[in-house]
Parts: sequence; structure tokens; C-alpha cells
Amino acid sequence: MKVVKFGGTSLASAAQIKKAVEIIQADDQRQAVVLSAPGKRDNQDTKITDLLINTHKQKTAGEEYLPTFEKIRARFVELSELLEVDVNIAAELDVIEQKITAGTTLDFVESRGEYLNSLIIAKYLGAEFVDAANVVRLTIDGRVDPESYELISKQLGNATGRFVVPGFYGTGPDGEIKTFSRGGSDITGAIVARGVNADVYENWTDVSGILQADPRIVPAAQSIPEITYAEVRELASCGASVFHEEAIAPVRDAKIPINIKNTNSPADCGTMIQPTRSAEKMPVVGVSGKKPYRILNAEKFMLNRYPELPGQIKEALTQQDLAVEFDMKGFDSFALMVDSSSNFDENAICKYILEKTEVDACSFGMTVALVGIVGAGLQSQTGLLGRMLSALDQAEIGIRSISYGGSQLTALLAINLEDYENTLKVLVAQLQK
Amino acid sequence: MKVVKFGGTSLASAAQIKKAVEIIQADDQRQAVVLSAPGKRDNQDTKITDLLINTHKQKTAGEEYLPTFEKIRARFVELSELLEVDVNIAAELDVIEQKITAGTTLDFVESRGEYLNSLIIAKYLGAEFVDAANVVRLTIDGRVDPESYELISKQLGNATGRFVVPGFYGTGPDGEIKTFSRGGSDITGAIVARGVNADVYENWTDVSGILQADPRIVPAAQSIPEITYAEVRELASCGASVFHEEAIAPVRDAKIPINIKNTNSPADCGTMIQPTRSAEKMPVVGVSGKKPYRILNAEKFMLNRYPELPGQIKEALTQQDLAVEFDMKGFDSFALMVDSSSNFDENAICKYILEKTEVDACSFGMTVALVGIVGAGLQSQTGLLGRMLSALDQAEIGIRSISYGGSQLTALLAINLEDYENTLKVLVAQLQK
Repeated sequence: MKVVKFGGTSLASAAQIKKAVEIIQADDQRQAVVLSAPGKRDNQDTKITDLLINTHKQKTAGEEYLPTFEKIRARFVELSELLEVDVNIAAELDVIEQKITAGTTLDFVESRGEYLNSLIIAKYLGAEFVDAANVVRLTIDGRVDPESYELISKQLGNATGRFVVPGFYGTGPDGEIKTFSRGGSDITGAIVARGVNADVYENWTDVSGILQADPRIVPAAQSIPEITYAEVRELASCGASVFHEEAIAPVRDAKIPINIKNTNSPADCGTMIQPTRSAEKMPVVGVSGKKPYRILNAEKFMLNRYPELPGQIKEALTQQDLAVEFDMKGFDSFALMVDSSSNFDENAICKYILEKTEVDACSFGMTVALVGIVGAGLQSQTGLLGRMLSALDQAEIGIRSISYGGSQLTALLAINLEDYENTLKVLVAQLQK
Repeated sequence: MKVVKFGGTSLASAAQIKKAVEIIQADDQRQAVVLSAPGKRDNQDTKITDLLINTHKQKTAGEEYLPTFEKIRARFVELSELLEVDVNIAAELDVIEQKITAGTTLDFVESRGEYLNSLIIAKYLGAEFVDAANVVRLTIDGRVDPESYELISKQLGNATGRFVVPGFYGTGPDGEIKTFSRGGSDITGAIVARGVNADVYENWTDVSGILQADPRIVPAAQSIPEITYAEVRELASCGASVFHEEAIAPVRDAKIPINIKNTNSPADCGTMIQPTRSAEKMPVVGVSGKKPYRILNAEKFMLNRYPELPGQIKEALTQQDLAVEFDMKGFDSFALMVDSSSNFDENAICKYILEKTEVDACSFGMTVALVGIVGAGLQSQTGLLGRMLSALDQAEIGIRSISYGGSQLTALLAINLEDYENTLKVLVAQLQK
């Protein structure tokens, strides 16, 4: 069985939904369908989920909320008409409106986009509608309750026909509707895939997979054909907006591959996220970065004798509302990359650190961006890193720090802030050689 | 004023001493002379200090010790005859013999080589003999007592003529003779330089300065013309047998440069150790390594939230008598370089770590050597590192880890153990390009 999940952009309009349905029907194995709420049809449009949240907010604030709800109603009524499905959508919307008026929870309200969309599309597909409330369980803090896997396995594991499960929500420990974080439909897809022990979890989006770098910075970035779960995590740690950890964990544990595909270009292979891969052809999968950080250089004679010191400084910085992203050791010194997205008084911070910790000296150095080069091939093709650094040198980009080996998948560089975009471009060009 | 210190090899024979004296007399500023005990005249010879230690050992063990002492006596008598100096060396030796027979301390006995040698050479030079017992003070644990600087400043700071101070010893808090660690004459030289506020501390040896790498591994290694105190420390941390920290600290604090010179080739510039240098001409000063280490790869999901973890593992390893030389962080993992010069049961160690700490997983990887590339120019000439790594790649040497930035002076690489010597050769060849 394959699990196919479609995101909001893939389901924004009747035309988009028809594309998705065509994809689903092209493969009989695509039995389990997980759907988001309708997204934006164009740049001026508002996502259904945002409209639902606004309705709840207005109701709670004692403001007029029905006009907002009417927009939602109009959109779903239009959708069911365009798709010509036989669903009493008006009655469903009435029930929701009554509950909003009665003061129901935000979680219930914001989950209705997925609910209604799945109801309509299940009918259009001629598939069974399975309310996520009956098969997905969340913990009190909004995380996946592993009980969900058993519920899904029992109820859907041996399904012979197609079924549609709304994403984003389930039932909390109190029996009420509870939602995951935004984008939680990816999590639902992973839970269903794990529950039915799917052969693959197809995640249909509006891009042809995970790209080698942020395409807004590197337009030449290409789709990554194969990547491991661990590499995705490292890319995300380096700042890439890739698949969310919570949406990977359920399938990773069961070694089910995730295939990121493009609804608008279904023939593209997309990206296959899997337990292992051969790193020979593509040693490095991608590059990603975050910024800005200030380098805090601290000195401690015979640092090796004070293993607790970097932790002490982190603690002191936390007390000053500063976050440390990464730290590196030397023999008599070490460096910490301090998040500098908001301003701070560096003299006061250094004074505080000198008071609170045992460092001999400390000072802030330059402002940098951190860029990660991610790929299992760094380990096997050890000349890669030298070529990457040489390419940066030829582009007159200076390396402020480099760390490779703490993770065998990622080389993390610090470069001058103003070199950020160029660094990503040069590295991707090097990857594509 | 210049302080000149000569090591044992430079003073092993009358011929060598004449070379040293010629050097001293060639420059009127070379007023303060610090001397070691006579070293080996050839490979079969024994250092005077070793003979003295043996005498004391034999006496303490109740064995015959006078034959050993007679060898010492013969050597000093011969030396004073060859140099034709008017010193009652026989009387001095008689006093020492009596004290040994009476059961004096090891510190007193082992210090007599420097004492007698300085007495003879002071006479030969026509210089004043200043017993270190009167100007050098040691703490109870054998370290420099800063009171020494004041004593020397008062007694010798305004000296108009030449004077000779024996190295290696001084007076402890109990008023008795106390020695520094072996090679302590370098420390005495530094103390005297600090005390008289010397313009330079010339340290005369049998090599023309600090070399770019261990010449036993890299015969092509050349002398480093200029190096900073900090770079010397980093080279030493990476395993180089360079100037001892305790012999640098006194002059470093006073910003007095150290000039390492060759008694057998006095025209060579040698190496100047100084507070700062321009890194433009020679960005990297040298390379050095240590081995063997096993890489311990440990995993911890969201490591950044557990700053105490690397310290915990170090502690656990210490309890198992294992030392961690260096550690590097990743995002969900980290690596520790564990000294593997003695064998250990890696499964038992991993089991112990899993029990005692919060790591998710740990395993030992390959056996490596650590090689440091040291130089202030790594910071300004940021392309260097890429070229070094490329050169290693071309020599088919794989990089297991690299860390640069925790120290701005050193890039520390881990390479396969069998690549150790070749790595040093390739890097030095690259430095000399």
C-alpha cells in the first residue's frame, strides 16, 4: 500500500484537486490518501485554515465573526459544486457554525478545513472517508501518541479499497479534537504510513522534491534524487526548511521511504528520503545556512581540564537571553556561535561571562553566517572538502571556522555575513560539476 | 642586556665550551649566561646529570656509589685542566662527595652538574659566578616563585660585567636546594631574562631553531624564522617537542623575545619566539601530530540541549583510565578522540558509557593520528586550508575530521594512522611551496 499526502497548494482549487485525483487514480497502490485544507489559489487568496483561525479569534474577542465564516462556507460550497459531489456540505458547515457560536476550541475550529476538504474529495474519489478523530491520537503536549499506529493498523491495515484521512488533527487524551503544529498534515501522513506499514509515503507538494539549496538564493539548485533521513535532519539543523522532524520520525523508525513529489509535474522523480543510500554518485546532497551569528572567542589556559566551561558560558548567555548555535574547541581557547538576530551589548555580555565563569578572557569577533555542507559522501570522498574550500577561496570567500567530524554527514563553515548568498551559489555550482 | 643559555650538548666537551665562549664574547650585550650540566660527548657517553642521579640512587640503595662519582670527578677535573682554569675543583668535588656520603637529597646531588660546570666556565670567561641558590626561588611543588624576579632584578639588573648562573636549580621554601623538572635550565634562563628585563633571551642548542616538523619524520623540515609564543604553545599542544611552557611563561608575560640558536652554526638566524609577528610571508609556521587515537562516535538527539554530555563522557572515560584528547560537536552527534596508546575493550567501554551517561548510542570508529597545522595566517589567508586539504587529497590521504576556529591558530585534522608520516611530509612540502 502507498500513502499519498497532498498539501494545501495541491488542493487549493477544483482544478488542482482534479490533478491530485488523477495522480491518485493512476496507481491502484495509492490507497491511503491524507489531505490538507485548501491553500491559496493565488497570491491575494487566504488559506482556509487562516480563515478558520480568524473566525475563532474574532468570536473569542467578541467581534463579528460570521462574515469570515461565510467566506469559508462560500469556498466549500463552490468547491463541492465544481466537483459535482453529492455531499450535504451545507449541513456540515451549519454544525461547525453552531459549534463556533457555542464557543468551541481553536483546535476544533482550525481542523475543519482538512475535515471538510477530505469529506468532499473522498466522495469525488469514491473512497471511504475516515475521520482522523477516530484513528489519530495526540499526547497532551500535541505530539504523536504511538497508540495511533495500532488503531490505524487494525482499522485500515487490511483495507482493500481507497480511503481518505484528513491531516493535521486527531483526538487528544481528553477525547476532544486536537491539532498538531502548523503543517501537521505531513505528520498525519507519516502516522498513517507507519500504521498501515506502507511501502512508501508519497508527499505531494508544489516542488519536485528537496532542492540542493534554497532556490530563492540559488536559482540553479536542483532536486535531490535520494537522501537519507539523517541527511534531511542535518540539512534542517543547518537551516533548510525541509521535512519536519516530527513527520519523519514515525516512518524512519519503520524504515518506510518518503517520496517528495510535485503535483504539477508528477512525472518528475522528486526526492526519495530513505534509510540508506549509495553516496558514490552524489556525495553531497545539499547546502544550507543560517544567520546572523557573532563569534564569541573565549580563552582558557589548558581548556581540556575544564570540560564544563563551554556549558557554563552557554548557561550564562541563556541568562542574558542569548542562544548558542554551535561551539568549537581549541587547546587554550574555544569559539561559540551566538545568535545575533537581535542586538545586544557585547561589552556587558563579556563582563557578565567573565564574572560568572572561569574563562581567562573573552571577546566578540565578526558577524558570520553558518553554512552546512551535508552528505554521507564527505566521509568516503575525503577530497571533496578540500575542493569545496578551494572553490570558495577562488571566489574570495574566507573561512572563519570549519568543523567536520562531530557529525560525519555535515561540514559546518562560518563565513562572513556578506558572503552568505555567494557561498551557497559557489558550493552548489561545485556540487553540480 | 641579553641572556644566553647553553644546553648540555653545547657544553659537552672543552671544544664545545670554547665554541660557546666564543659566541658569548662575540657580543658585549651577552652579559647574563645560564648554563646546563655537560651533556653527552658522543652516543656512548653518559650525561653528567644522569651520573649524579645514579650516584644518589646507588647510595640510597646501599650499593657502591663511589665508582660512579669518580667518573664525574674525572670528567670535571679533565675539563678544568683542558680549559686551564684556576678553580679548586678537587675541593668542590670533595665537599659534594661528603654530602652524598652523609645522605643529602637527590635535588642537591642532581643540581651539581650545573653548579660545577658554571663555576669552571665563569672562571674561563672571567665572569662573576652567581649561585642560582641565591637568586632563584622555587615553590613547594617545584614551580617558579615570582620572588625570583625581584631577587635577580636587585642583584643583577644593573650588573656591568658578565655573570654566569647555573641552570636547573634554586632554593625551595625550606631553604634547601630544589630542582625544576628535567630540562629546567631553559626555565632558569627565562627567569633570569625576566629578572634583568633582558632585550632577548638567547637559547643556544644543537639545532638552528624550531623546525617546521619533526625532522626524524620530515627530513626536509626547515627552521621557522619567526613564531609567536601562542603558536609555540599550539605546536606543543599538537605534540611537538618544542620549548616547554614553563620556560616561556616568565618571558611571555614580560614580552621578551626568545631566540633559539645553534651553537654549532651561530650565523644561522635560528627561531625568534616573540609576542606578535606578521603572518603574511609565512602564514603557517609548522605542523605536528600525535597518535594513536580511536574516534568515539556518540549520538544524542538534539545534542545542543545537553551541553554537559561531552564532559560526562570524558568523566566516564577517565574512570576507565582513558584520556580524551579532543572533542567535536555535530547537531545530533559528537566525536571524541580517545588516547589509544594502550589497548582497551571497546565494547565494555561503550557499555559503560551507555550506562553512565545520557547518550543514545556510541561506538568506536577508526584509529587515527591527530595533525595540527599551526599559524596565525590561517585566519588571514583563508584559502590556505583548502589548498592543504587538496594537497592531502592528491596524495590520497583521507580526512576523518577537521576543526578550525575553536583556535584561530590551529587547524586540527584526524587522518588514518597509516597516513601519519606521509601527511606531515605532504603538508611541509605544501608550506615550502
